[in-house]
Amino acid sequence: MNTVVQRFPEHGAFNRQARIQLADRIFADIRKLSEDGPGVSRDSYGPGEQAAIDYCAVLATSEGLVVRFDEAANLIIEIPGKDPDAPCIVCGSHLDSVPQGGNYDGAAGVIAGLIALIRMKRADIAPPRNIRVMALRGEESAWFGQCYLGSSALFGQLAKDDLDLKHRVTGRTLSDYMTEAGAEIDRIRNGGRLLDPADIAAYIELHIEQGPVMVARDLPMGIVTGLRGNIRHANIICTGEAGHSGAVPRWLRHDAVMATVDLLHRIDSHWQALLERGLDLVVTAGMVNTNAEEHAMSRIPGECRFCLEIRSQSIDTLEASYQLMRSEADNVGRDRGVSFAFDDRSLSSPAEMDKRWIQHLLDTCKEMNIAAEPIPSGAGHDAAVFANADIPSAMIFIRNQNGSHNPREAMEIDDFMHGADVLYTALLDPPL
Amino acid sequence: MNTVVQRFPEHGAFNRQARIQLADRIFADIRKLSEDGPGVSRDSYGPGEQAAIDYCAVLATSEGLVVRFDEAANLIIEIPGKDPDAPCIVCGSHLDSVPQGGNYDGAAGVIAGLIALIRMKRADIAPPRNIRVMALRGEESAWFGQCYLGSSALFGQLAKDDLDLKHRVTGRTLSDYMTEAGAEIDRIRNGGRLLDPADIAAYIELHIEQGPVMVARDLPMGIVTGLRGNIRHANIICTGEAGHSGAVPRWLRHDAVMATVDLLHRIDSHWQALLERGLDLVVTAGMVNTNAEEHAMSRIPGECRFCLEIRSQSIDTLEASYQLMRSEADNVGRDRGVSFAFDDRSLSSPAEMDKRWIQHLLDTCKEMNIAAEPIPSGAGHDAAVFANADIPSAMIFIRNQNGSHNPREAMEIDDFMHGADVLYTALLDPPL
Repeated sequence: MNTVVQRFPEHGAFNRQARIQLADRIFADIRKLSEDGPGVSRDSYGPGEQAAIDYCAVLATSEGLVVRFDEAANLIIEIPGKDPDAPCIVCGSHLDSVPQGGNYDGAAGVIAGLIALIRMKRADIAPPRNIRVMALRGEESAWFGQCYLGSSALFGQLAKDDLDLKHRVTGRTLSDYMTEAGAEIDRIRNGGRLLDPADIAAYIELHIEQGPVMVARDLPMGIVTGLRGNIRHANIICTGEAGHSGAVPRWLRHDAVMATVDLLHRIDSHWQALLERGLDLVVTAGMVNTNAEEHAMSRIPGECRFCLEIRSQSIDTLEASYQLMRSEADNVGRDRGVSFAFDDRSLSSPAEMDKRWIQHLLDTCKEMNIAAEPIPSGAGHDAAVFANADIPSAMIFIRNQNGSHNPREAMEIDDFMHGADVLYTALLDPPL
Repeated sequence: MNTVVQRFPEHGAFNRQARIQLADRIFADIRKLSEDGPGVSRDSYGPGEQAAIDYCAVLATSEGLVVRFDEAANLIIEIPGKDPDAPCIVCGSHLDSVPQGGNYDGAAGVIAGLIALIRMKRADIAPPRNIRVMALRGEESAWFGQCYLGSSALFGQLAKDDLDLKHRVTGRTLSDYMTEAGAEIDRIRNGGRLLDPADIAAYIELHIEQGPVMVARDLPMGIVTGLRGNIRHANIICTGEAGHSGAVPRWLRHDAVMATVDLLHRIDSHWQALLERGLDLVVTAGMVNTNAEEHAMSRIPGECRFCLEIRSQSIDTLEASYQLMRSEADNVGRDRGVSFAFDDRSLSSPAEMDKRWIQHLLDTCKEMNIAAEPIPSGAGHDAAVFANADIPSAMIFIRNQNGSHNPREAMEIDDFMHGADVLYTALLDPPL
């Protein structure tokens, strides 16, 4: 056994085995509440999400924890700390899922927090400060086309337009759904902050990894270093000159496909070089299409459209890679006599995780003999909203097969419990 | 003036100016017969083509030339030579056009031959051998989906299935159209040869260039070295693995677009290197598409489909480039953990033009002080059918703006007359 267990002794029968049994039961119960055939559907601010929230609220109440809802209808489960007036620590995630999604994306973080609080309560251990487990609402964009609904509302960042967004199935507005869930819709519409960031000392989120890195590295956990931001162009049009594929020699061609290939290949090569220099970067051209109205096997393509997404944890790397890409587009344009037209670029800023908390979580893993590595998060999370409100934030990733947003998510309960135990231990000894 | 004019003196008033006037009139008349708004439409074996053929037949008859139709309903205009029993020389091209096509693609070759024969007739010059101008029917695939109909029929190469092909507008069969035009449909259906290649000493075709090379080189004429054959795949499927564009790092990606980019870039680089070694090659990927049912801006593309066409005058270059491409596909597949699935490849063999005739035409140009260069033909022509029947064949290309198969074809009449004069001169002094 390790030193941590000695510091925070296990209470009665609520040992590791019992905690795993409880976690298994909770996961099974909320899966049952939202099964939709192949997967689960827990719609944001809708009945699917509400059922999971109600379940957790009832369970927490039965364990003697304080349960309430904030003005954005997020669930708050709280345990009082030794210094109840000090800024509290929030740990949380979300309970909604995409349609036909998996059972662990979001729910794992809420359940890990809940089990940590139950463990403290049953052991009668008071943490240094109040700890709140939050089930933040509407994290998934799948239902209303906008993500981070519940956390954005807290920081006055839910735009009025967002409230008019329509549910993908029913067509009713987000405003209607939020009102029914008990949110103070008028305050949210006014854009005021519903909580003061100064009241929160840290935001810690446990979440399944949505990529394959932990599986490939054979590690149960990762500690997130930052959430990648992105720069995107939805539509870049390369315009060359169509022509007879047999009759136009290379030196007279302005081939839009070969020019696009040239540009993407240059970007791909730069990407590799930048990785070798230790920078964090992923680049994706997810859609590429020649013009179906005029393309043909024996026609030099005069047009090629594609999208491009650059992601990095570093805003500097993002901007530098972007400018490099634009400059290579100019070079290819000049070399091959084509032009690249870019639509409006969109920028989503990266979110940095708090260095002290990253180190604290890594140290805790080490202390508990749990293998873990620093890892960037490619996907977005509520943690980005908290971090960008200047609240020190951190994330624990749990190994998970098959990505997320699909029913084949496959987190192992043993990995989950490693993460939940690290969370519990770290919360009792925060670096504050 | 040059030596050629001295050898073959101009007859009475039919000097260059008069020949240009006649050519202008013929082009204008046949354009009028087939105008369709923006361009001309002369449907293969249909009324559009027939009107142009009848016009030429009447004009040739009025000039005292022998006019008849062969068993595939191709128009033959003949002038007897000094040795009427020797294998004849055929010069010709086609009078059909694509829908909304240009007035010169095909017609230029028939009219050049016709003017050459009129010039001989008016000057009372008997060529060494019989010369036939042929207006070969149905060269364009646009109407029945199959090209070289009239010439293929002559060599017993029109398949029975081809006779059942349907007209793109009326839906009636090629067989019906050919019968109405006067072809011996039963003989053609039986697949027998309608002429003996041994009766033809050479086939010479004048045609507009369908590419931009002569314009770019500022030359009125080109002498064709060969007709490029091609190897094609209509559908190559690169299969990788879809994934979250933010959460999967480069080393765990199997990106179908980046793999396709890698392959096409390698092919493009090889192409450039092979050109520098003097080989004849063009490569085109005219259609590239990610899977619209699953692609997204934030999804690593799991599938990319594209077509690939390789063209060369040399069957060896074709095959070698093809094998190089396949081997690079294997390399990229191994490097990036993707697979490339190839549909059936199609091969259309190149056609070599006759070296003696190429030299003869180049010498004739030089003698007449007309700038000309050897040039490959990227497009197919009836000359390929004759060449592949072992008839020594050659082609003269006339400079032409804006490609072909569109109403913006823009051959200048002065360039045309240079070509027609070279044809005339070369026919009177064949390298036989």
